[in-house]
Amino acid sequence: MGRNEDKAAWEEFFLPGLWMLIGRLGAAGSSCLAAASLRPFSSSSAMAKSKFEYVRSFETDDTCLRNCYIVVRLDGRNFHKFAEQHQFAKPNDDRALGLMSKSASSVMEGLEDITIAYGQSDEFSFVFKRTTTWFKRRASKLLTHVASQFSSSYVFYWKEFFGEQPLLYPPGFDGRVVLYPTGRNLRDYLSWRQADCHINNLYNTVFWTLIQKGGLTTTQAEDRLKGTLASDKNEILFSEFDINYNNESALHRKGTTLIWEKRDETVSKRIKRPNEEEKQVPVTRSRRKVEAYHCDIIGDQFWEEHPDVLQDDT
Amino acid sequence: MGRNEDKAAWEEFFLPGLWMLIGRLGAAGSSCLAAASLRPFSSSSAMAKSKFEYVRSFETDDTCLRNCYIVVRLDGRNFHKFAEQHQFAKPNDDRALGLMSKSASSVMEGLEDITIAYGQSDEFSFVFKRTTTWFKRRASKLLTHVASQFSSSYVFYWKEFFGEQPLLYPPGFDGRVVLYPTGRNLRDYLSWRQADCHINNLYNTVFWTLIQKGGLTTTQAEDRLKGTLASDKNEILFSEFDINYNNESALHRKGTTLIWEKRDETVSKRIKRPNEEEKQVPVTRSRRKVEAYHCDIIGDQFWEEHPDVLQDDT
Amino acid sequence: MGRNEDKAAWEEFFLPGLWMLIGRLGAAGSSCLAAASLRPFSSSSAMAKSKFEYVRSFETDDTCLRNCYIVVRLDGRNFHKFAEQHQFAKPNDDRALGLMSKSASSVMEGLEDITIAYGQSDEFSFVFKRTTTWFKRRASKLLTHVASQFSSSYVFYWKEFFGEQPLLYPPGFDGRVVLYPTGRNLRDYLSWRQADCHINNLYNTVFWTLIQKGGLTTTQAEDRLKGTLASDKNEILFSEFDINYNNESALHRKGTTLIWEKRDETVSKRIKRPNEEEKQVPVTRSRRKVEAYHCDIIGDQFWEEHPDVLQDDT
Amino acid sequence: MGRNEDKAAWEEFFLPGLWMLIGRLGAAGSSCLAAASLRPFSSSSAMAKSKFEYVRSFETDDTCLRNCYIVVRLDGRNFHKFAEQHQFAKPNDDRALGLMSKSASSVMEGLEDITIAYGQSDEFSFVFKRTTTWFKRRASKLLTHVASQFSSSYVFYWKEFFGEQPLLYPPGFDGRVVLYPTGRNLRDYLSWRQADCHINNLYNTVFWTLIQKGGLTTTQAEDRLKGTLASDKNEILFSEFDINYNNESALHRKGTTLIWEKRDETVSKRIKRPNEEEKQVPVTRSRRKVEAYHCDIIGDQFWEEHPDVLQDDT
Repeated sequence: MGRNEDKAAWEEFFLPGLWMLIGRLGAAGSSCLAAASLRPFSSSSAMAKSKFEYVRSFETDDTCLRNCYIVVRLDGRNFHKFAEQHQFAKPNDDRALGLMSKSASSVMEGLEDITIAYGQSDEFSFVFKRTTTWFKRRASKLLTHVASQFSSSYVFYWKEFFGEQPLLYPPGFDGRVVLYPTGRNLRDYLSWRQADCHINNLYNTVFWTLIQKGGLTTTQAEDRLKGTLASDKNEILFSEFDINYNNESALHRKGTTLIWEKRDETVSKRIKRPNEEEKQVPVTRSRRKVEAYHCDIIGDQFWEEHPDVLQDDT
Repeated sequence: MGRNEDKAAWEEFFLPGLWMLIGRLGAAGSSCLAAASLRPFSSSSAMAKSKFEYVRSFETDDTCLRNCYIVVRLDGRNFHKFAEQHQFAKPNDDRALGLMSKSASSVMEGLEDITIAYGQSDEFSFVFKRTTTWFKRRASKLLTHVASQFSSSYVFYWKEFFGEQPLLYPPGFDGRVVLYPTGRNLRDYLSWRQADCHINNLYNTVFWTLIQKGGLTTTQAEDRLKGTLASDKNEILFSEFDINYNNESALHRKGTTLIWEKRDETVSKRIKRPNEEEKQVPVTRSRRKVEAYHCDIIGDQFWEEHPDVLQDDT
Repeated sequence: MGRNEDKAAWEEFFLPGLWMLIGRLGAAGSSCLAAASLRPFSSSSAMAKSKFEYVRSFETDDTCLRNCYIVVRLDGRNFHKFAEQHQFAKPNDDRALGLMSKSASSVMEGLEDITIAYGQSDEFSFVFKRTTTWFKRRASKLLTHVASQFSSSYVFYWKEFFGEQPLLYPPGFDGRVVLYPTGRNLRDYLSWRQADCHINNLYNTVFWTLIQKGGLTTTQAEDRLKGTLASDKNEILFSEFDINYNNESALHRKGTTLIWEKRDETVSKRIKRPNEEEKQVPVTRSRRKVEAYHCDIIGDQFWEEHPDVLQDDT
Repeated sequence: MGRNEDKAAWEEFFLPGLWMLIGRLGAAGSSCLAAASLRPFSSSSAMAKSKFEYVRSFETDDTCLRNCYIVVRLDGRNFHKFAEQHQFAKPNDDRALGLMSKSASSVMEGLEDITIAYGQSDEFSFVFKRTTTWFKRRASKLLTHVASQFSSSYVFYWKEFFGEQPLLYPPGFDGRVVLYPTGRNLRDYLSWRQADCHINNLYNTVFWTLIQKGGLTTTQAEDRLKGTLASDKNEILFSEFDINYNNESALHRKGTTLIWEKRDETVSKRIKRPNEEEKQVPVTRSRRKVEAYHCDIIGDQFWEEHPDVLQDDT
């Protein structure tokens, strides 16, 4: 919060005689709270703020290397337990995934320099364009802004996705910052997260199908899947449960990719020009909006269709 | 969230022929969503996750220097505007201050290695003991954990302090990490924040008294205070409004200091020993609880009364 | 130096009774040196090395971000004074420039991953290829290796360039590490240094010509050049001293660029095959050698002629 | 080297028409060197230096945390081989150890803020006082200054210790920076290095005695020492070779500790006061000089005798 900095008061932090007297008259006990009114006059607290300001010089510079993509990834803390306590559906809870995306969009809308975000399960990655100067590229600022805005949004929008089911306690997310010098490195990062999504979701889909439809216990399902390959898992789903994995929800298989899209919006406006009658005029504006995709981002197609995401902004 | 990592699936990320066929039968359009089911078989997405994992090596180590106190300070983002939009009382809103403290306590209760926290206005500082090994002392983890937990708590506990007044949007806090090698440096840091609290609050108290009780406009109040010293401000309050600043709320003048306190709690327990009748027995346990103080932390008294806060834990 | 680490000795750092006795018999005085023989048995020095090894954990990781070019630049310390004390010729001393290049070559020959080096005046920049894994990309190791090798070479090869003129004291160079994410950024860095060379050399050339041939004092020469543009300086050289700056030594105008070049070397070898007489056979080998250029590296030509220097080594 | 920065020339980096013409007349070939004179006029090199200066912003801040002791440790590179090629005596070569100390003193004399240095074998550690502001506490600058000055000194003073035995090539040293927040941590660091010295030297002393006096091969000596404790090694030396290890050279057993010492120096000066005859007056000055010790620095005695080394300079 902007403060009214009162420079002249620095040297005057210790109050003169009169006020010391009044202060003494008003004070009595020796407990912390009672003693408080005496404090400003004691020799130690009488030291001016300026005396302490040297501590600022202990802050270190954590500016991100220029011309690199800045990725902030958040991960839910203890979300395994959180999911159980809030009865998340298995293997995927669409309310929880929706809330993650909503929170991520809320972060993006506050920071236009995030050009793409990718999320799956309880994690979300945010990519700042390589030339961003937000927060002077200070890692701690970018990191905490994203973590904070995401977390408060998660609680704020909870009701929108979980209705009357109460949120039992405030959840936590931790984060990290990683820099990528080239577009190729960045795409490989996002591919890594989507490949992770695929592998986990295939496993979880078969695992929970064996339990929910196959009647196995969790231990039996684990044993059944031990050592199986992706093809084996697809085969189990298809031959035993008539499920074609590729027809499963793209949201679950591919995760969620958020990017900015320009949309033309036409609104009607009343305009009054001199020597003319007022009239209704259609006005078209190009607006940027965060859009969600649930598609492959490992191959080239997505990137060819959205060349601006990685576009060098030189 | 802990994931079922299915190592055997790495090499099998690209699915064999049969599934490719089924996938193709199920796919039709060329849009991102429709095409999604085709993707896993395309040559590009067929690359295994392991191929991308090299991107992990771009993460840098941000371990905090050992044997230093670690301070995380959070500041409200755009809280000037936030305060206005939520009609915070001037110069201090006790609901807002209470919510800040509650959120800070919530952070502390999740992290026992925070030995002291100090807050005022829209900021809060958290001090980790110098020997902490939480998150392996990784700055980004400590920072985001605090920022995230504080932010979600702020929204979660809003109602407890603001009742039916709605929270209009999810607020944000940004943070930084600073290391202090000695107890003296750390105390000077906290003194710096409390001196800042004093100076701002004295100014704000006079400023708003001139407006609210003296009938001045904000501009007139600003002019009146221009160039005044602390003694002048005390004089204005005393002679014109009969206010002794030192009797003002300690919460406002001193901010809030949170520390852990041991409390003995005695509960009654039913115990049944062999060859004895069951009986009611009083059991006393020492419990750690976060306690709030609104007292001077610049002088020595507070630190002498709570020697364990800075105690070297060697 | 590789040491014979004697693990079994850790726990035995304090010697047993017999040796303590002998030690005592041999010791007498109380001075540091005399007391030394007593020391190993005193309670304090009796602590095992393993007790102290925790201090290693205070080292921080300074790994350079992957896939970035790593530049180490060295600058002579107090070389203004050094140049005067060693009577360097003005405006350029070819012996000193030759020694700088020789020392830089010596650094490159010990580190093949340096693909290009550029030097002028008392500075030299070394560029490691973006994929280098030398010293695990640890900044401090790369930095000190270059600074150390360059400095010892400077003294070692002094005689080769200065003959019997003695080196008066050991010179110092300080250094820094900078990372560049793209080839464009790297070329701009090198262009920056060469533009610096151009501007300084043009100024120095005119300045010293005015003094050495024009008979001006240094103050007069300074005044004469105040506010002049490059064209003015060229004009002074041409019309007053009949000097075409562009015909001046390329070494002075362009500095020195060192790169690796493949050279075919043909040597004659005696070979004896079964059932044949021994004979003399020419054998051609491709050898890498450091070559020096004194040409423009701002434009594209140099880079087109040496595509391997920046070539992505993926 | 301080340069004559000619600000006015920035915008004039590209030379006007006349000079371009002259340049062209003078140029002929297409090789790098010949083409050089053409370069300044080509469109690419015509870009001003200021255009490239943005690359400076890629430098990162590596300021050392305030109020911590800064340790720079150097280690010889490939000194095992270096020692063999220069016929170092086994197990210790006093010429080599002397040269190390001389080079370290040379570093200290150039940097008064180094309060203590400790060396053994081919390594040397330099400790900057915790409040130093040398090079603005920039790690890279402190590191390279020490590495560079040490290396050039090593070559420069070689002859002083090795006489006519030639130095075969310029040696290298690499370095690292470590911060220690407390005096205790720093002393433990130095203790760690001295304990390392002790263990290595005891091993090496027995090992080479077995070979040089006992007639064993290196393999036999290794086998003989496998699994022995310190007491066993002392026993071998004493019973088989009549050597009391504690009477061995303190330089070898304890390494070398360099500190600053104040020495009073009295010189005779001729002084002429008004109305007096000129006379010879003794003048005493306190001079700081680097002194070498070969004593225990693990125990308290050394530190009690030299309280100023760690003294907080607040």
